[in-house]
Amino acid sequence: MRRLYHLPFDPQSRKVRLLLAEKKLDFSCVIEPVWERRETFLALNPAGEVPVLVEPEGRPIWDDAAICEYLEEVYPTPTLLGMQADQRAEVRRLVAWFDKKFANEVTKNLVGEKLHKRFVTGSTPNSSAIRAGKQNVHYHLDYIGYLTEQRNWLAGDDLSLADITAAAHISCVDYLGDIPWKDHEGAYDWYVRFKSRPAMREILKDTVTGFPASPHYSDLDF
Amino acid sequence: MRRLYHLPFDPQSRKVRLLLAEKKLDFSCVIEPVWERRETFLALNPAGEVPVLVEPEGRPIWDDAAICEYLEEVYPTPTLLGMQADQRAEVRRLVAWFDKKFANEVTKNLVGEKLHKRFVTGSTPNSSAIRAGKQNVHYHLDYIGYLTEQRNWLAGDDLSLADITAAAHISCVDYLGDIPWKDHEGAYDWYVRFKSRPAMREILKDTVTGFPASPHYSDLDF
Repeated sequence: MRRLYHLPFDPQSRKVRLLLAEKKLDFSCVIEPVWERRETFLALNPAGEVPVLVEPEGRPIWDDAAICEYLEEVYPTPTLLGMQADQRAEVRRLVAWFDKKFANEVTKNLVGEKLHKRFVTGSTPNSSAIRAGKQNVHYHLDYIGYLTEQRNWLAGDDLSLADITAAAHISCVDYLGDIPWKDHEGAYDWYVRFKSRPAMREILKDTVTGFPASPHYSDLDF
Repeated sequence: MRRLYHLPFDPQSRKVRLLLAEKKLDFSCVIEPVWERRETFLALNPAGEVPVLVEPEGRPIWDDAAICEYLEEVYPTPTLLGMQADQRAEVRRLVAWFDKKFANEVTKNLVGEKLHKRFVTGSTPNSSAIRAGKQNVHYHLDYIGYLTEQRNWLAGDDLSLADITAAAHISCVDYLGDIPWKDHEGAYDWYVRFKSRPAMREILKDTVTGFPASPHYSDLDF
């Protein structure tokens, strides 16, 4: 069976898990502590990062973008990029929005400081970074609200990799309880719809020992 | 005509310029000082970053990955990703190698410190970051040498987006004179071949006022 080397609170890994689940492709998960730099893992991916997908008899694929494009090419139904080039460009624009802009302005400041520093590097979280993350998230939730006022899902009529990428990041931050849902009805409505999808089930079971999830993390009716 | 909003020493922008030139697609370039956050540019790309491609009568496309995938879909000949899914995955793996790993370990430490800090933020370059960049580059040049020992180009028999992405980063660092070519014959041979391609001509004309190129930057026989 295909294997995915991942980390539960890495949004890039969550994106691939969600895509695999939306495409109803079976896979087994291997949690890879990349900071240990295990030799057998470095042989799979000399870059030493997750996610890495290994198809039976296939060459290991890294990174998340390469994996998603590969899965879309080999298993095109249902499409998560769309059929027309300009539509696909819009999906990929929003994927970049969340993987670059949201990641830098929100995920890194909150998940990076609160989880990664505490449990991986053992260093002290930077409180001004956390404050910045909590402030920046409003703008991004507004953007989600703005998009879904005009469209059924983030990039158009159909669910796409844009929704998956946004949910991959937001679900990690939501574990911490740092998504101010009450102030952002549009984003809330979008996430309620996404969260109830079967693909989200496994994601909502993820936990960090010693750092419990926010009370509503796995609640579909939060 | 199609327009590309870019910055001359941004590797993401250089990647798109090289891809457009390899596909022999006409385009005009607009240098966009993203730090000014011009309203007309933010209307094109609310993320406020380059590169942004505007096709005649098309919606603006950001980021570099979205643009490259779009160009490959709409103008498939010559292909710069390859024809088979596993081959395309290998090209995209190496694109990630340079856009993530090389970018973080080399480009940011050298181009970011020496050019961006001096000419954009006006802050003082961090000398230990520069030292780290100069040390890290050896490993990446070794990796290029390792790959080209086994293959004609980085990802296989044919030139691909992997070579373009590597050259986009390396050419920026080479402007500074920080590529230790003498120690890395394999990487040198690969770059000599790439540098002589017509697509590189415009890149090799880029200059920064007050910061001249290293003597061999535009020399094809360096």
